[in-house]
Amino acid sequence: MKKLLNDPADFVDEALEGLLLTHPGHFAADERNPRVLVRKGGTPAGQVGIVTGGGSGHLPLFLGYVGPGLASAVAVGNVFSAQSSDAALAAIRAADSGAGVLVLIGNYTGDRLNFELAADLAEAEGRKVRIVRAGDDVASAPPERAGDRRGVAGIVFAYSCAGAAAARGDTLEDVVAVAERTIAVTRTMGVGLSATVLPTTGRPSFEIGADEMEIGIGIHGEPGRVRGPLRPADDVADDLLDSVLAELGLGPGSRVAVLVNGLGATSPEELYILARRVHHRLAALDVEVHRTLVGEFATSMEMAGASISVLALDDELTALLDAPADSPLVPRGL
Amino acid sequence: MKKLLNDPADFVDEALEGLLLTHPGHFAADERNPRVLVRKGGTPAGQVGIVTGGGSGHLPLFLGYVGPGLASAVAVGNVFSAQSSDAALAAIRAADSGAGVLVLIGNYTGDRLNFELAADLAEAEGRKVRIVRAGDDVASAPPERAGDRRGVAGIVFAYSCAGAAAARGDTLEDVVAVAERTIAVTRTMGVGLSATVLPTTGRPSFEIGADEMEIGIGIHGEPGRVRGPLRPADDVADDLLDSVLAELGLGPGSRVAVLVNGLGATSPEELYILARRVHHRLAALDVEVHRTLVGEFATSMEMAGASISVLALDDELTALLDAPADSPLVPRGL
Repeated sequence: MKKLLNDPADFVDEALEGLLLTHPGHFAADERNPRVLVRKGGTPAGQVGIVTGGGSGHLPLFLGYVGPGLASAVAVGNVFSAQSSDAALAAIRAADSGAGVLVLIGNYTGDRLNFELAADLAEAEGRKVRIVRAGDDVASAPPERAGDRRGVAGIVFAYSCAGAAAARGDTLEDVVAVAERTIAVTRTMGVGLSATVLPTTGRPSFEIGADEMEIGIGIHGEPGRVRGPLRPADDVADDLLDSVLAELGLGPGSRVAVLVNGLGATSPEELYILARRVHHRLAALDVEVHRTLVGEFATSMEMAGASISVLALDDELTALLDAPADSPLVPRGL
Repeated sequence: MKKLLNDPADFVDEALEGLLLTHPGHFAADERNPRVLVRKGGTPAGQVGIVTGGGSGHLPLFLGYVGPGLASAVAVGNVFSAQSSDAALAAIRAADSGAGVLVLIGNYTGDRLNFELAADLAEAEGRKVRIVRAGDDVASAPPERAGDRRGVAGIVFAYSCAGAAAARGDTLEDVVAVAERTIAVTRTMGVGLSATVLPTTGRPSFEIGADEMEIGIGIHGEPGRVRGPLRPADDVADDLLDSVLAELGLGPGSRVAVLVNGLGATSPEELYILARRVHHRLAALDVEVHRTLVGEFATSMEMAGASISVLALDDELTALLDAPADSPLVPRGL
């Protein structure tokens, strides 16, 4: 295992400690639960709090999306494991400044169940809590079972738009609506070239041949759609983009935001080569690219691979996406 | 070779094309040399222009450091190969708004020779040009041959401080002095855990065993000081930090900036584990950490590993480091 770590059992807690020492002006640890980080200063009074959470090993997901214009608190699980329900409840409590809390998470069973339990307990305390799950990964289920789809890098757009809605003072119902509307018009498709090794087991998350790639693979190594020989970047970009565009109904004059996301070991140069192809393809369709994000926004430790996400924009989502958002862990494009 | 690319011969040019399509408001291509990128709008009138350049494969180095508060133009070479003297000259011309040009590069033979030739030609055109070379890598030569040392991630501090000096209107001599002074108090030491594969050859940049690490390795795989079994992160951090601190003469009350840099495949979690140890060590020495940068600031494509840089701050360097700098490729900490 080629990782810089001490006792694997301490991997997450030591990383959190380093994070807090590095960014003392941005994050604070929750007073009662060390697996909860909050935005320094908390949710501004009267604003809806946004909470997220999930397994570790995906930085800047999830905790990197805590900050002004983004989430207020995050519950942190072990590597590739759901956050606990205790942490989920502590994060909801920490984020609630009285206007209610949106829990915005990826659609994974453990993450969902523990946040549902926490939301029930929080509501029993008189808090208003709503849960919205991102399921942008088109490879993970067919359109007729879209509710079963996993959340991957496209959740970044939901953090940005819902975070901006909360920051401008929208009610909980309105922030929920923005999150749901953003997710409804976001699609992602990824490709994996190599596996990641889990710190606790020292074993790869999946097996893949030296010349193979897997289209549609999940960020924990969940099986994708097609495994085959590695092909040229333009072909791979076309494959990913075709799957994404097939469900968005874009045409001449449509406006989109694009995220070309690196899974960990893939270089920025390669991501820009993919972005180049995406721009050419969308220009040929007469689709306007309002903004392109290129970088590591949702990773799987040292996994090689990438994903392409597209968000179909309207005027309101454009304005929300363009509103300020700040976190030291997220590339500057957001 | 597990890379997303088309014809390897097009790797750099396609990445540049994608970069320009992604960041149209930030970069522009030089009109006469496609291997030169300039800051959109050019060097503000009356300001010293800063030029950098070098081989590709190190993003965000070098071109990511073009932007307000940073460099004005960059000359881009092939992967791990120096920029041409033609590109170097075009970059100097593009950056010169009349107040002269600082060429700020890493200390590598090819980069240096081609920029020296370009500077001679530019001076023959009546331009004022000065070259400053960063040589922060303590592993690459002993202190008595510090002039032979390679430049690695610590050059980031020089971009920031010299860029801020240029932005506030310093003369060329003063910007040069700031760059030299920053480099004189910056030290870096790295560790490599795995090699990168070169797009054009498909071969790894060096060989290393499955359980080995190499302390002091260069960002192109240049030999380091010690190769041995991979050790716990805290031991590695201590090794790197000890080498860096040995030459900086820090004591109680000293103030520093720290850069924990990932070489490509090492996860942010691991970098924060290293940052944690660095903070503990510096706190024990009663050294104040003014700012910590954690992330990928200077990479070697998919190489696993990290480096630790320390900049010894005085009041002026602190103010320059804190001045605004902007590039979409550089993590937000800078």
